[in-house]
Amino acid sequence: MTDLTMIRAAAARLAGHARVTPLLHAPLLDAVAGRRILLKAECLQLTGSFKFRGGWSAISALDPATRAKGVLAYSSGNHAQGVALAAARHGGPAVILMPSDAPAVKVANTRTYGAEVILYDRETEDRDALGAKLTAERGLTLIRPFDDPQVIAGQGTAGLEIAEQARAAGVTEATVITCCGGGGLSAGIALALEAEAPGMTVRTAEPEGFDDVARSLRAGRIERNAKATGSICDAILTPSPGVLTFPILNRLCGPGLVVSDDQALRAMALAFTHLRIVLEPGGAVALAAALFSPDLPDTVICTASGGNVDPDTFRVALDQYLTR
Amino acid sequence: MTDLTMIRAAAARLAGHARVTPLLHAPLLDAVAGRRILLKAECLQLTGSFKFRGGWSAISALDPATRAKGVLAYSSGNHAQGVALAAARHGGPAVILMPSDAPAVKVANTRTYGAEVILYDRETEDRDALGAKLTAERGLTLIRPFDDPQVIAGQGTAGLEIAEQARAAGVTEATVITCCGGGGLSAGIALALEAEAPGMTVRTAEPEGFDDVARSLRAGRIERNAKATGSICDAILTPSPGVLTFPILNRLCGPGLVVSDDQALRAMALAFTHLRIVLEPGGAVALAAALFSPDLPDTVICTASGGNVDPDTFRVALDQYLTR
Repeated sequence: MTDLTMIRAAAARLAGHARVTPLLHAPLLDAVAGRRILLKAECLQLTGSFKFRGGWSAISALDPATRAKGVLAYSSGNHAQGVALAAARHGGPAVILMPSDAPAVKVANTRTYGAEVILYDRETEDRDALGAKLTAERGLTLIRPFDDPQVIAGQGTAGLEIAEQARAAGVTEATVITCCGGGGLSAGIALALEAEAPGMTVRTAEPEGFDDVARSLRAGRIERNAKATGSICDAILTPSPGVLTFPILNRLCGPGLVVSDDQALRAMALAFTHLRIVLEPGGAVALAAALFSPDLPDTVICTASGGNVDPDTFRVALDQYLTR
Repeated sequence: MTDLTMIRAAAARLAGHARVTPLLHAPLLDAVAGRRILLKAECLQLTGSFKFRGGWSAISALDPATRAKGVLAYSSGNHAQGVALAAARHGGPAVILMPSDAPAVKVANTRTYGAEVILYDRETEDRDALGAKLTAERGLTLIRPFDDPQVIAGQGTAGLEIAEQARAAGVTEATVITCCGGGGLSAGIALALEAEAPGMTVRTAEPEGFDDVARSLRAGRIERNAKATGSICDAILTPSPGVLTFPILNRLCGPGLVVSDDQALRAMALAFTHLRIVLEPGGAVALAAALFSPDLPDTVICTASGGNVDPDTFRVALDQYLTR
């Protein structure tokens, strides 16, 4: 089970390989929010999201012989990119299983990172069976997107940085809002802050209609979303918190916050204007919650967990929330 | 005259106040460029450009009694914002003289930073005379945008950071390309690198038709632009290099690089996609030069000097260079 020792060990393995992302703030953003907002800019992480941390942590923790055989990830998104680059920089192979209808640019990018992309037909092929066949035949190691102790430890390194950077800014008490899908980032950060910044409490942020974590935290047991699609926050539409992540979230986090797609878009527009960073909708929900939720304290820290947004979605944010 | 000692002293005054901006890179951007590009992301600096460094350096170097009387800047752009916030954080007044036809949002933002904005009519009033009257009446100190030794020293702190961050990344030899208007940033960085990274050489980047620095470097004397407007790179359309900056540029920099507005827009689109940062056109010319100039070495460092772009201009970059 992930603990502070594992997170610190992951941080040592990531040092010099993952980027220490800045904790940004902007006076004009604070003026809009009516509170002080510090933003952990993981959109500036290698591959454009915090997922590189978890990928690096898991791959670097493998014994060299296992690593040399290669790793496998299922994803057309941020986790795939993070695993692909982390594997390539370790000099080992990565196989990414992607649906054949994934955007061509994502397939091309994953290949440019050095991964072998294997496409499967969502209608006629079983992804898990295909993955199991590949791992058996080639001796690949599956890197899960969040329910893996070393992945959680890797994401937790962002929490160690938040604690240190906030302390340097004179902040030791704050609500920390995390963009939450399966809960790997939220759990990792919560574990890190429990030890390193006990004056901070973690609250998760999710899109409306996909608030499985908020409901699970209220119920004290894992709840699932009713649907799998229907929000622009595609990066965090996970069906439920993980078996490994939920006990950590349940012990350390809550209550969960929920934002609308429009609030996520407005947060993207404000981040564009005042922080000059590019956020994807799922990476903007924590900022949206920090901006638009009632009853928050004077200082809020939030994760900006990813910036891999397609231009059309970004145009919507600019068109709706910035005057022409 | 600015020298390394002054730059180091400015860095000590800026520590904990200005942001140490990251030196970003992206494997997919390198694949597009065909070379390794490291990018000093000053768009992430407070107020969205490197100008905060120079403003802070100049204001912090004033004796307290002078500072308490206040500072004055002429500008509707990045220099005004940098001076306004630097003055406010020193607890002293700032007066910003802006043309009455400046965009309302810029006036409002400058006021939100805490400055007193005085508007003047470009047609009927003489800015310099008005400024002289204000400085005399109120005892204000004029902070020039580039031709001031302490401003150059402040911008040079970005050069100290480049040297250290590049060294940490294993890079000691590179061409360093700077976005160049009046030459404050370029001169400051060149002085810092002369001492701290002697394997690096600085080349300036400018928009086509506004290549006063490139021509001045070729001629060995200050040349002026034929026109004052006509490029989207508004932040760097200075008529000529400065009396203080040019001798430094002439000794340490060159040859100057020139890019088209379309190349600047394309660099903005690539920075959006691969680095998840927002650049303004004038802040993207160094990246454009790094991407599109012939005969560059395998490793290029460039400044991304500002990100205060209006949404319409940003939309043009997305629309022209990213497929819908």
